[in-house]
This record gives sequence, C-alpha cells and structure tokens, in this order.
Amino acid sequence: MNIKSIDPDWIAGAWARQNRLTKPPGALGHLEEIGVRLAAIQQTLKPKLGKGAVIVCAADHGVSAEGVSAYPAEVTAQMVQNFLSGGAAINQIARANQAEVYVLDVGVKGLVGMQGFASLHTRKIRQGTSNIAKEPAMTHAEAEQAIRAGIEIAQGAIAEGATILAAGDMGIGNTTVAAALTAALLGLAAEEVTGRGTGVDERGYGKKLEVVGRGLARAESRLGDLTQAGPLEVLAELGGLEIAAIAGVYLAGAEAGIPCVLDGFPVTAGALVACRINPAVRDFLFAGHCSVEPGHKKQLAALSLGPILQLELRLGEGTGAVLSFPILRTAAEVMGGMATFEEAGVST
Amino acid sequence: MNIKSIDPDWIAGAWARQNRLTKPPGALGHLEEIGVRLAAIQQTLKPKLGKGAVIVCAADHGVSAEGVSAYPAEVTAQMVQNFLSGGAAINQIARANQAEVYVLDVGVKGLVGMQGFASLHTRKIRQGTSNIAKEPAMTHAEAEQAIRAGIEIAQGAIAEGATILAAGDMGIGNTTVAAALTAALLGLAAEEVTGRGTGVDERGYGKKLEVVGRGLARAESRLGDLTQAGPLEVLAELGGLEIAAIAGVYLAGAEAGIPCVLDGFPVTAGALVACRINPAVRDFLFAGHCSVEPGHKKQLAALSLGPILQLELRLGEGTGAVLSFPILRTAAEVMGGMATFEEAGVST
Repeated sequence: MNIKSIDPDWIAGAWARQNRLTKPPGALGHLEEIGVRLAAIQQTLKPKLGKGAVIVCAADHGVSAEGVSAYPAEVTAQMVQNFLSGGAAINQIARANQAEVYVLDVGVKGLVGMQGFASLHTRKIRQGTSNIAKEPAMTHAEAEQAIRAGIEIAQGAIAEGATILAAGDMGIGNTTVAAALTAALLGLAAEEVTGRGTGVDERGYGKKLEVVGRGLARAESRLGDLTQAGPLEVLAELGGLEIAAIAGVYLAGAEAGIPCVLDGFPVTAGALVACRINPAVRDFLFAGHCSVEPGHKKQLAALSLGPILQLELRLGEGTGAVLSFPILRTAAEVMGGMATFEEAGVST
Repeated sequence: MNIKSIDPDWIAGAWARQNRLTKPPGALGHLEEIGVRLAAIQQTLKPKLGKGAVIVCAADHGVSAEGVSAYPAEVTAQMVQNFLSGGAAINQIARANQAEVYVLDVGVKGLVGMQGFASLHTRKIRQGTSNIAKEPAMTHAEAEQAIRAGIEIAQGAIAEGATILAAGDMGIGNTTVAAALTAALLGLAAEEVTGRGTGVDERGYGKKLEVVGRGLARAESRLGDLTQAGPLEVLAELGGLEIAAIAGVYLAGAEAGIPCVLDGFPVTAGALVACRINPAVRDFLFAGHCSVEPGHKKQLAALSLGPILQLELRLGEGTGAVLSFPILRTAAEVMGGMATFEEAGVST
C-alpha cells in the first residue's frame, strides 16, 4: 500500500503557530501535540474533524477451548447480535460521539441468518481460528484475506464520509491471542503481556499464561526469532482473524491519510501488525486510551504513543477509541480557531 | 440555599442496573460511576445531558504586585477581551463541546467600555482585590456580593437551558490566591499547594511561596485556626473576587440539581469554599481533569474525586472542565441506552 509519512516541516510549522496562541506555551498539555499532529496529517494550520467511524471486527478463537476466558465462546456471536440491535456499549458511545458503527464478521462461529442489518459486513473467512496452543491459527492466505476485509470495510467507511477512524474488537479469547502476538512482535515474555481480559479467575489466569507460553514456543519452533519474522507469518501462527482485519483497518486509514485512533489491547495488537507491514502507519495513530490490560502499556510504549484517556476501561469494541474522538475534534478546533498573542493584542 | 443531597437509594438502584448491562462488570471503568452518579442526580435510570454552560469568572489580584506571575496584571483585561471576541482556548473548546460561554467580570481592573457583548456580565465589585500578603483581600460584604454574582449568572445560564455547568477562571495572580485559600481550608503548608501557575521562573516561584506563607500567617493571626474559620471569613482574608464568584456558580448548580464540573486549581479552590458553605454541593461535583498544579491533586483528594481527564492542562478558563463534557454525556448515554444481559440474550 502507498502510505506517505507525515512531513516534518508541517509538524514544525504547526508548533510554531501553536506556541503563539493566547495561552502560556504548553498550557494545553497533550491537546497541543494532538492539534499539531492533526494539522500535519491534514496539511493545514486549521485542521477540522467531522464524523467518525468505528469498524468493530469480530471472530472466534480456537484457543477459547482451553478455558482462558471468563465467558463462553458463544458470547462472540451474541454480542455481534447486540451490536446490530444497538444494545452494546459501542452503540451508545458511537451515537454520543458522532461515529458510525460498522460490524465486520471475519470469523464468528455459528453466526448466520443476520441479513437485513445494514451495519453488518459479512466476510467470514472461516468459523474461527485453530487453537494457537496446538497449531497455527490460520493459513497465510487466510491472514491475508482477513487483512483485505479490514481494508475494504475501512475504505467503504471513508468513502461514506468518515474523517476519523477507529477499529474495535469482539472475540472471546482474543486477549490471549493479543498477548501471544504482542509478546512475539515486541520480544516480550508471556508474563509481561498477559492480563485478566474480561475477568478470568486465578485458575483461568494460570491457564492463560501457560497457553500464551505454549503458543509462543510453538511459533518460535517454526519461525525462529519472532521479532524478526514476517508479520503475516506471525499472524498466521498466533493471530486472530479479527486482529488481522484490524491491521487492515489501520493500513487503510493511514493510506487515506486520516487520523486513526487505537482502542485497547487486541486492537493495538492489530495496529502493531499494521506497523510491521508498513512503519509509516505509525504517523497516523493516536492512542484513544490506556486499558487496564498490562500488555497495552507495553504496546503503546513500543509505538511511542501516550494515551488520551485513562478511564480504566477494559471492554474493547472500540469503546475507548471512540470516547476520545471529541478530544481530537477539540484539539483541531483549538489549533485552528485560537487567536495568537499578536492577533488578540495580549501582552506576553 | 436549599441544596438536597443525592439519595443513596438512587445510587444503589443505578449500580444494580449498571452491573446487568452487556459488559463484564466494571469493564467501562470510571465511566460506570459517572453514569451512576448522573442517574442519581437526575433520579432516572436513563439520564440525559444536553447543552452545557461555562461561567468564566474574571478579576484582578492585588498580590500580583509582588511579582508572583509570569504575566503582567493587564493580561486579565486583555484575556477577557479575547474571550469576548472568541479567540481564546475556552471559546474553541466550548464551541466544539456544545457549551455556552458566559464571562463574568467581578473585578477586572480597568476593563471598561465593553458594551455590546452579549456574553459579558459586568458585576464589578471593585477594581481587583488588595494584596493578601499585606492586608485582607476584600471585605466580608464584598465576598458575599461576588458569591451572589456567581449565583445569579449561573442561575441565568440554567434558565437558558444549561444541563451541565462549569466555572472557569481568569485572573493574573490567582494561583497564588488559590494556593493560600487551599492551604487555609485544608490545613496544608504553602509548599504543598504552590506551583508554577502560568510558568513563573525559579525566583518568582520562591517569591510566590513566601507570599503564600505571609498571607496565611496574616490570616491566622486574625482568624485563628483557618480550617475551623468560616468560609466567608477565609475568603475575605485570602480570596479572589472571581474565586468567590466561582463558589457561587457551584452553589447555584447544586441547588438546581444539575451536574457541576470542576476545572483546575483556582476553580477547585472556589468549589472548596462552596462545599464549606454547604457540604451537599459535593454530591453534584465531577472533576473534569487533574491539572499540573500540585495543589489540585490535594483539592481533589479532599473532595474524594477522581479526575476524568489527565491531559496535563494548566490553562484554566474552564478548559479542562468543558473538555470533559462529552465524557459525561457519553456516560449518561451508556447508562440509559445499553441492553442488559437478559434483554440482549447474552450468556453470562
């Protein structure tokens, strides 16, 4: 894909204006850097953000058979139905923050007969992945297809007017997969990236740690040093179909040159894959929030991104990403609308 | 004033519903408690927030003659003009977040001839306070008048449709005054509550610390133990006219029974005064953000409030308060709009 890095001259020019606005330099904290990055992304000193989109990517995980989650696997399909009927958290958060919800089924087990929902995009590549503790999650070709599905739905959302993009995730078992992927891509140990997910108990947590370790050892035995392996190879070994699709969403957003907001741990695992495929994706990323999952901090540190919100969210679905949209919109308004000291006749 | 505390039965009832919504319990972090408190304030399980208002209270401070600020005193009047012509940060932030800006001049030195600005409310009690390091800031009657001005403008904003209220501050020298007030009300030392304000240098900071200490010693010599003194007495000794008005804003918001959002250090000093006047005010307060000022953390701890945003803001004007409005609105939508597990047919 053709993704152009941000021009550093635009960053410098935007800071030059930001520092002349009628406030003590730095007094708007992180809002200032957000505004500067939005200016550079849009190549204007008066950036503007309109409506947003969140692509909620959903799939099942063979690894859920290991008992790594507090919820049974059928919840993935049930929650997708909840997204479609508007009863989930992401529906309320999107409505309250001018964002459209797109639901992308790349591998939800047993979800059928859902015709008639305009927000559902069915690109079911297979009925969930294989168990990463025992075998590769999917084939290389399936990983590619899932990425492609994410790209296409994101491109559709952008064509329909989205000026700011986020991915969301739904897939029982996916924090286990995200932990394995994150450990693989960043060269970390299972202990550093494995958390409680939706709230697994002590016994389940021990199982989860062990499963992540087994998956990593298995993948290493096939690919060698995982930090050096190709992103599609790592994804096929340890990935989730929805995480591959999420990588596609961020690739498409970066190619379109619009701000792309991260959600929590599984979504950021997808973004790490996208950045491994094309490092220029990083220039378009904003960290919507920092989740309770310990691995999320590691991911954000690896991307050198500070979180916009710190509300102790751990739900996924894109909730933390969309919740930060108004902060990004406001940062753009501040950058574009404030008077400079000279314009306002204020002493410095 | 007649301020009714929140009914704990409403809090319990709202938590009972919040815990049955289709998400792992607690997965929406601080958003859940915000939604519960909004439900209890509005006495409905489906709370709704519409447009907001921010009352930016402005006044000058005699103590600025001591060289405690990085900016000259005339900046107060210049910034008020900037608010009126729409060039300040609060104007952009309010516009982007469905809030109306009301500017209240309770004591800006030399600001005259500003007729024709609908957003300006002139209730100039005097041309700034006296220097708190040397003498009482104002009389008891003046403190009362300033509180009354804040109450009246806030009541006007509520009558004009505000469903969520914030106060903002403008006054060169007001972090010095806020430090003295906070130390007095909470029984803290000058060192614990004095920060850099708009960015004073090392020499100015030393001066600021010394001035806060002198003000406290002077007030103590007149009132005895300041933690036990009446709030109006403390305000008259160490206050600012805009901080008194801010106390009035929160008193009026709490009496009207609408959510009231705090901004940074000077605004929260005003809220501390309001809570000392009537402790039931606390039930209606939300901490919009946590500022860089060290004393702000102490204030929020004293109020047992966790900040919604942590963006390292230190501007004032109400910016951090209004920036959090969409989070409060979203928390209300989530509380009111999400399906329960039973309603959505999702396994638990």
